[in-house]
Amino acid sequence: MNAVFVDEHLIRFSHCDPAGIVYFPEFFDLAHATMEDWFARGLQQPLPDLIRDRRIGTPTVTIQCDFAKPLRMGDTLRFELHVTKIGNASVQLAYVGKKDGTEHLRIKQTIAFVLLDAGTATPIPEDLRPRIEAYLSK
Amino acid sequence: MNAVFVDEHLIRFSHCDPAGIVYFPEFFDLAHATMEDWFARGLQQPLPDLIRDRRIGTPTVTIQCDFAKPLRMGDTLRFELHVTKIGNASVQLAYVGKKDGTEHLRIKQTIAFVLLDAGTATPIPEDLRPRIEAYLSK
Amino acid sequence: MNAVFVDEHLIRFSHCDPAGIVYFPEFFDLAHATMEDWFARGLQQPLPDLIRDRRIGTPTVTIQCDFAKPLRMGDTLRFELHVTKIGNASVQLAYVGKKDGTEHLRIKQTIAFVLLDAGTATPIPEDLRPRIEAYLSK
Amino acid sequence: MNAVFVDEHLIRFSHCDPAGIVYFPEFFDLAHATMEDWFARGLQQPLPDLIRDRRIGTPTVTIQCDFAKPLRMGDTLRFELHVTKIGNASVQLAYVGKKDGTEHLRIKQTIAFVLLDAGTATPIPEDLRPRIEAYLSK
Repeated sequence: MNAVFVDEHLIRFSHCDPAGIVYFPEFFDLAHATMEDWFARGLQQPLPDLIRDRRIGTPTVTIQCDFAKPLRMGDTLRFELHVTKIGNASVQLAYVGKKDGTEHLRIKQTIAFVLLDAGTATPIPEDLRPRIEAYLSK
Repeated sequence: MNAVFVDEHLIRFSHCDPAGIVYFPEFFDLAHATMEDWFARGLQQPLPDLIRDRRIGTPTVTIQCDFAKPLRMGDTLRFELHVTKIGNASVQLAYVGKKDGTEHLRIKQTIAFVLLDAGTATPIPEDLRPRIEAYLSK
Repeated sequence: MNAVFVDEHLIRFSHCDPAGIVYFPEFFDLAHATMEDWFARGLQQPLPDLIRDRRIGTPTVTIQCDFAKPLRMGDTLRFELHVTKIGNASVQLAYVGKKDGTEHLRIKQTIAFVLLDAGTATPIPEDLRPRIEAYLSK
Repeated sequence: MNAVFVDEHLIRFSHCDPAGIVYFPEFFDLAHATMEDWFARGLQQPLPDLIRDRRIGTPTVTIQCDFAKPLRMGDTLRFELHVTKIGNASVQLAYVGKKDGTEHLRIKQTIAFVLLDAGTATPIPEDLRPRIEAYLSK
């Protein structure tokens, strides 16, 4: 219970803008990569398999990000991910982004489970629910 | 007074993911492009000049997005941008993203004005303030 | 005969790297956008329709780019596209990238026509062949 | 002598297009990431330090890619990088991209060393030349 999923990303040249800091939309791509790693290693259900074999997708319904401090190329961004809310067909995730132990950004995201072929919401698969609950905390 | 800045973007192949819809971080890149176009055509102060000549940047402090309906390649995304709040050194922007008159997403973003060399906040330049106010509405 | 397709792109903040110039992989994305515009406006066969309705894709088989001069944010990149070779199931394209009349880069690309569901090459559709030939020159 | 630098990359959701395969410009971003990792771990000269402390950049002068087989999300791309030519101020690199031992793509790239402030070519730094030579092979 109360597990936190940790994922580290090297900030690369291509993430940075002419001001030398990460171009903010890149943080959402890095958060998505973290979510993919969480599905693969944290939930033992790789997203590519969920999409291809089970035809279930996890689109983002709402996302919010506060940027407190910039990051620069060569930095290592450490994302700490946990679950803050579990609905019938949706999950709310929180990402705390740190560098050297200091918080640089914070993301809150709600994803939904949808049937890709029908385009409609679907309950969180029964086998995944308890694994998701293991990451639930306030 | 009460002006709204309108900017249209073609949804391209490269914006879309294996599910055939726009990969959500791309919407933030499209919003940034809209902000650039607003600075250039709405405020008559192109961002490249602001950055290079005046050494002022406009980093994003906080951003929030609600995704109501997906967009697909070939669609035209129409962003309607207005200003919702003007601070001493920051501006809050709202983007309503539509397709064929229907709302698909909504973004709220706060940008700050910073001196790029010092890395510190700076008041909104006096020449820009009235031009920004022209787009202010609730 | 001997038509050239012209497509202009504004170089944006997000295209540029910490050295202040376009990050080179972005040029391939801009070339792809040019190809999409060529299919839509030059060949009157929008790629999204080709992919979705006819289930034909146009993957890149080989691409080569020479970068002579950099581009910076605020610049306008003008791509001049023409066809250099037409095979049974493939087309070779050349893009000359200019700024203010001066050549900055040059791309040569071969695309193939493939059946998306079978994953196999397919002859250039009969209705498209004469329209593609209209852009053929050495 | 004759060293090869190996770098592996997970193919992510965001690398893939509506056809479900990697959007080809992403391969150039992955090749650049491999070059960054080579500078950091192979040459012991991280690119961020080269750029920031020594004010030397390594822009791409020419690049060529042959795509033999597609890659899909969840695949692991293994890049094997070696040096094929060393000039006075430039280096030619070859990347062989494999999946499960099978070649999927091949890239040839020439990078130049430039003084970022002057914008002019500069000889390969003396301390780096022997380390680069260690990766030279035909």
